[in-house]
Amino acid sequence: MFKKILIANRGEIALRVIRTCREMGIKTVAVYSTADRDSLHVRFADEAVCIGPPPSRQSYLSIQNIISAAEVTGADAIHPGYGFLSENAEFSQICADYGIKFIGATAAQINGMGDKATAKATMIAAGVPVVPGSEGLLESVEQGKRLAEGIGYPVIVKATAGGGGRGMRIINKPDEFEKAWNDARTESAAAFGNDGLYLEKFVEEPRHIEIQIIGDQFGKVCHLSERDCSIQRRHQKLVEETPSPIITPELREKMGAAAIKGAQAIGYEGAGTIEFLVDKHGDFFFMEMNTRIQVEHPITEEVTDFDLIKEQIKVAAGEPISGVNYTPKLFAMECRINAEDPGNGFRPAPGKITNLHFPGGHGVRIDSHVYSGYTIPPNYDSMIAKLIVSGQSREEVITRMKRALQEFVIEGIKTTIPFHIKLMDDAGFKSGNFTTKYLETFDFSSLKG
Amino acid sequence: MFKKILIANRGEIALRVIRTCREMGIKTVAVYSTADRDSLHVRFADEAVCIGPPPSRQSYLSIQNIISAAEVTGADAIHPGYGFLSENAEFSQICADYGIKFIGATAAQINGMGDKATAKATMIAAGVPVVPGSEGLLESVEQGKRLAEGIGYPVIVKATAGGGGRGMRIINKPDEFEKAWNDARTESAAAFGNDGLYLEKFVEEPRHIEIQIIGDQFGKVCHLSERDCSIQRRHQKLVEETPSPIITPELREKMGAAAIKGAQAIGYEGAGTIEFLVDKHGDFFFMEMNTRIQVEHPITEEVTDFDLIKEQIKVAAGEPISGVNYTPKLFAMECRINAEDPGNGFRPAPGKITNLHFPGGHGVRIDSHVYSGYTIPPNYDSMIAKLIVSGQSREEVITRMKRALQEFVIEGIKTTIPFHIKLMDDAGFKSGNFTTKYLETFDFSSLKG
Repeated sequence: MFKKILIANRGEIALRVIRTCREMGIKTVAVYSTADRDSLHVRFADEAVCIGPPPSRQSYLSIQNIISAAEVTGADAIHPGYGFLSENAEFSQICADYGIKFIGATAAQINGMGDKATAKATMIAAGVPVVPGSEGLLESVEQGKRLAEGIGYPVIVKATAGGGGRGMRIINKPDEFEKAWNDARTESAAAFGNDGLYLEKFVEEPRHIEIQIIGDQFGKVCHLSERDCSIQRRHQKLVEETPSPIITPELREKMGAAAIKGAQAIGYEGAGTIEFLVDKHGDFFFMEMNTRIQVEHPITEEVTDFDLIKEQIKVAAGEPISGVNYTPKLFAMECRINAEDPGNGFRPAPGKITNLHFPGGHGVRIDSHVYSGYTIPPNYDSMIAKLIVSGQSREEVITRMKRALQEFVIEGIKTTIPFHIKLMDDAGFKSGNFTTKYLETFDFSSLKG
Repeated sequence: MFKKILIANRGEIALRVIRTCREMGIKTVAVYSTADRDSLHVRFADEAVCIGPPPSRQSYLSIQNIISAAEVTGADAIHPGYGFLSENAEFSQICADYGIKFIGATAAQINGMGDKATAKATMIAAGVPVVPGSEGLLESVEQGKRLAEGIGYPVIVKATAGGGGRGMRIINKPDEFEKAWNDARTESAAAFGNDGLYLEKFVEEPRHIEIQIIGDQFGKVCHLSERDCSIQRRHQKLVEETPSPIITPELREKMGAAAIKGAQAIGYEGAGTIEFLVDKHGDFFFMEMNTRIQVEHPITEEVTDFDLIKEQIKVAAGEPISGVNYTPKLFAMECRINAEDPGNGFRPAPGKITNLHFPGGHGVRIDSHVYSGYTIPPNYDSMIAKLIVSGQSREEVITRMKRALQEFVIEGIKTTIPFHIKLMDDAGFKSGNFTTKYLETFDFSSLKG
């Protein structure tokens, strides 16, 4: 087992990793930027090394500074958390070159899953369903229409250089095709200086459902069931839950098997997530694979009783996994508490927390690096706490979450707590019947002021 | 279901009940003494009624004041928590007379189990093993000595009205008998106004093992496995865990069946606990039945996923239980965090909490009514928080508990946290091989200062 792990991250996930290391008797090294010297992850690590100032490229993204910190402190492994360098192939390779175990994917796996076209081809070869569409860019309206006939309407054309919904058109029938094609090309040329388009089946009423997998170096991979992350705002997840209200045991088995095939196709070791879109017909399509731990991993921990960070570390140290897939027995949900003003377009609201008291009691878990008197720096992600609740039914979880949110005292800054309370009372959310677009028509107006 | 529940208690258990009521959509009424106006249980209730000053007989033990508060606020049920009026037969009866549902035992059950001699006779009749001893009260020293010869020394004499170790003497040989008898009578007359004594075999190397049961009004009773409460100081529990390191599946089945028989013998409804002593031979003996929720109930909740307060309320409202006994799959432990100085004879240390930060993360639960800036009044029990940890093995729970204890920031007062940290590192405790006397020879000296 490792003697000392450096955590190449900050905030709650750095603290999260430190907690498990302490429980495993492994020494920890925190790294921190000058903006983060007062964070709890620095306080609870055995050693802490300052790796530079903000912005992140001078500290948390500086491979050189982090490798130096590992060398100086004698760390034999690095846990990258999520974000930052967690899916950086160069960093994974450099760790390997220095003989420091990177607790994550290999450079080849990161590259393979990071490039969407390669990832898609790999999954097709492994027999994992992907969204049907053009192979590469469309050459003409005629080619696009032929493809769309084969796939079946609705379809969507997307700018290859796109993002954020620009250069994108949904096409419901053949006679809409030409105009949509022209509009999307014009928009994408203007926005990105590149008018290349590709075509996909448009997934109707999509849910974002991801499967947590874990693999070992003996080729065994198992899945720990799904997480439903459909409650998003501008592709940012706000609430995650397990099990998904829409997943049947049969669909879970199929998606779990597909996720395992996908992971085995790249010889994956450690914790990973296969993200799928599930449409209103119960068909599912591979979106992407995250070769790292995810923000929302605690809901899986609460229902399975596994410590996923511990599993990551054990697998990285060469231990085998049990290989048993998990069947849901409990329910869990996570609300991301962000320092943002939900009544004002979720504008970031960093600042000093003048008073803080976390909720507690049965079925309530808090993962957070902040405390009363802490000043949230403006330089980073605005998530300041994860409130995770578990219970015996989805209804119990929702009522417990509302209770915990109402107990949560945080003064001095705006947070997303009022939004979450409203969501827990929302009939559409409570019904379990919503798509990834749900928040596009959500009424945030009562959260103003 | 009830519309409004008054919680006739204070501190963490009052807050605990309020949390569940909120989750169930039931309105709550807190009662509080003038010393407790700043407690969180007052803040989080829907209504709060001041019921008088300390000491408790003028407020939390004042049946009149509490019934008045229930009448004024229109509460249709009262939850008594533990301690105070939770096992007061008169209070239970008065609630019934006023048409307010007492979420606890009937007056007859409380009287039957509160009087140790009656309780023992009931259990013998139900076929539950009891410690051999006198039938009813001892009439004389001579009768006691004759009985002790028959049972075999060591024996113990105990106050019939007793509790908490008062009015109790262990007798190792005949010539110690008379003095012990006289001392116990004097002490018990002073403490309880009743000098009745009974005699029992003294159980060697005892473990305190209790079985959580729950019954409904349809005569169904099930058990939720055991709690091992052997880590005690002067009969005050400090650490509880489940499952017990010494209980085999066979013994659990026998003790569970005995507990169910005992509860059924008195037609028990609601949550209750049958406390047993288990000796070094694996024989078990009924000690007493607690006709209320217990301080240490959360460890059972953590492993079974049941909310025991919710179960109490549901059963009191006439709902049936599932009736399935629980087989341990997880492990949980509770440390009682008291405002006491463990380096100075656990002397109470009330005062102002100048800084407070609770531990968090996977498998960690906090039940507490205190917060940063709160002043602990000197009038009550010194318990200020319960730290409850769960995990996949006893070893994982102990390492996680230590991690959580080390993270627990509480400044301005002394607490039992340093004792708990030492215990988690203690080889005897870690071995699982200890008796209720374990702390009598524990070295507290390093906790001084």
